[in-house]
Amino acid sequence: MSQTELERLRAEIEEQPDVVERLLDRQLGAVRDVARSIRQREPSAVVFVARGSSDNAAVYGRYLLEVCNRRLTSLAAPSGLTLYGRGPRLDRTVVIGVSQSGQGEDVIAYVREARSQGAATVAIVNDERSPLAESAESVLACLAGPEQSIPATKTVVAQMTLLAMLSSVLDEPASDAGALGGLAVALRAAVAQREAAARLARALAPRTVGSVIGRGFAFPPALEIALKFKETSYTRAEPFSAADFLHGPLALVEPNYSALLIDVGGRSSESALELLQAIRQRGGQAAMLRAGEIEPIADDVPNISLHAPIGEPFAPIVALVLGQLVAVELALALGLDPARPRGLRKVTSTR
Amino acid sequence: MSQTELERLRAEIEEQPDVVERLLDRQLGAVRDVARSIRQREPSAVVFVARGSSDNAAVYGRYLLEVCNRRLTSLAAPSGLTLYGRGPRLDRTVVIGVSQSGQGEDVIAYVREARSQGAATVAIVNDERSPLAESAESVLACLAGPEQSIPATKTVVAQMTLLAMLSSVLDEPASDAGALGGLAVALRAAVAQREAAARLARALAPRTVGSVIGRGFAFPPALEIALKFKETSYTRAEPFSAADFLHGPLALVEPNYSALLIDVGGRSSESALELLQAIRQRGGQAAMLRAGEIEPIADDVPNISLHAPIGEPFAPIVALVLGQLVAVELALALGLDPARPRGLRKVTSTR
Repeated sequence: MSQTELERLRAEIEEQPDVVERLLDRQLGAVRDVARSIRQREPSAVVFVARGSSDNAAVYGRYLLEVCNRRLTSLAAPSGLTLYGRGPRLDRTVVIGVSQSGQGEDVIAYVREARSQGAATVAIVNDERSPLAESAESVLACLAGPEQSIPATKTVVAQMTLLAMLSSVLDEPASDAGALGGLAVALRAAVAQREAAARLARALAPRTVGSVIGRGFAFPPALEIALKFKETSYTRAEPFSAADFLHGPLALVEPNYSALLIDVGGRSSESALELLQAIRQRGGQAAMLRAGEIEPIADDVPNISLHAPIGEPFAPIVALVLGQLVAVELALALGLDPARPRGLRKVTSTR
Repeated sequence: MSQTELERLRAEIEEQPDVVERLLDRQLGAVRDVARSIRQREPSAVVFVARGSSDNAAVYGRYLLEVCNRRLTSLAAPSGLTLYGRGPRLDRTVVIGVSQSGQGEDVIAYVREARSQGAATVAIVNDERSPLAESAESVLACLAGPEQSIPATKTVVAQMTLLAMLSSVLDEPASDAGALGGLAVALRAAVAQREAAARLARALAPRTVGSVIGRGFAFPPALEIALKFKETSYTRAEPFSAADFLHGPLALVEPNYSALLIDVGGRSSESALELLQAIRQRGGQAAMLRAGEIEPIADDVPNISLHAPIGEPFAPIVALVLGQLVAVELALALGLDPARPRGLRKVTSTR
């Protein structure tokens, strides 16, 4: 086990409350400028383009913009443009490219094409001097500092925080994003949950973790937690929205199958509890990962639960941090090195 | 094993060339009417709303409309509306609900809300008297006849065929969708591949089929084939676009891991062959499922390959039929009953 690399991964996870504080302190002006340009343009749609973890942050942005701001949002399939040389007409849209490194060739190509068609373009990047940052009109920088671990953590949380800030000020220009005030505190409480995460990981380790499931605002963290499980411990957990899980994959449930259900309070709680019953009735195992304004649950459910006074739209960021801790501890419980995923590089560039 | 149910599932798969012929014969007028109303409205976006297999057909529709017709397309997250009571503004869009049964509550709710906001609404359904059909302005009927097997086959192929017809006539009102002329013939050749499908299934059965991967037009059939694998044999294959696979899940590859790569000719071939090399270099196993204008491949790759003179945009329908055959044979090779997925009902209604 590479102790130094594991320590670095843990340090990057623990830096996240500071990253969020920094963004709330320093980036509100830049976020307000982007919000103003979106309001002025009155776009027909907001289009996100991203890959990997950044795409999971983009899915979160979609829930925020559609539910909180009622803006039609699309997640781009960039291969139309990059493989076939033909993508959709984007002249009346706002296109937001999301990338940690700002190097992904297909994301850059999509943003460039959108800009040449007349779209308003925004880059959410950690590296402000990257080609993606240069290709977009506006840049929202993650200010996360260098991220050296291969599994991305703090850059994803920074992307999600910038999107939460954008949603907060989009329709209320005078807003100071005050609803996000408790986020850094909640993340400090989250990173202190290492022991609880280790307990949940020990409960999960003996079985096949087959899926990570969340509905509504709990779906984006389910996507990213499933990816962390793959990267850190080769756990083949597939992410599902609860609705899609019931349309087929429910057939997978048998006694050795376990699912991790994500609950971020509010409406997502009802769905998670319904699914808990459905999986148990079929003889499967369910564990829960919960953060936000949540109610207590029964003792016999393996769980990590962090009550934090933060509404359902922002609780996914807190849930994700708990999920990162569980992913690290699950790898350790399985005797694997979470910081050194085999075959992965830090920057993946897809043409 | 329920011989009758297995025979019924096979019969429904074998009916598919007839279903496609029927649609091309009888539904061109209805498809042209929908195309005309889309042209007249000049929508800001086309929004698909669907669940399960129908959602995979919708992803295919998205590639067609974005690449062949350059229309911005979004796949709805209906839970915004149904869980939180707030969805995006849809007044300038065309909303297409896709459902076999036409009973899915969230799909119906989304289409109703869109219509009340002034969107043009279309239902692609097999049951023309279903609530979804009644809730939309226009209906494109699948004409697939009753589908009794729980794993959906002919209704999905019908949905995809209607979308291919719509794409063909959308920008060329005088078109007779002639480019689809070879589809029924190609599907007849596909359903005759049962022996080849059984050979590929026997090659896949001893290992963990971890993923089904396709890029561009090969991605929608990868989604649906992975779902058939789950439903018929509880094979936990996760679908990926090749681009996203390289951004993390590649870490999963080890000697016992096998991936099924989908190749529908054209640009998708290059990507499939690159991925074949990448997976082999990491010691994993790769098999291929290929249909369309494809080149021969090396002997040592387990594969099912059907050369059919049909372009990349329509070859996904042919690939899907091969995938259905492989899913049935894989279940049989594993001693399971492909026609009776545990815990599933034919109609799943998600609120």
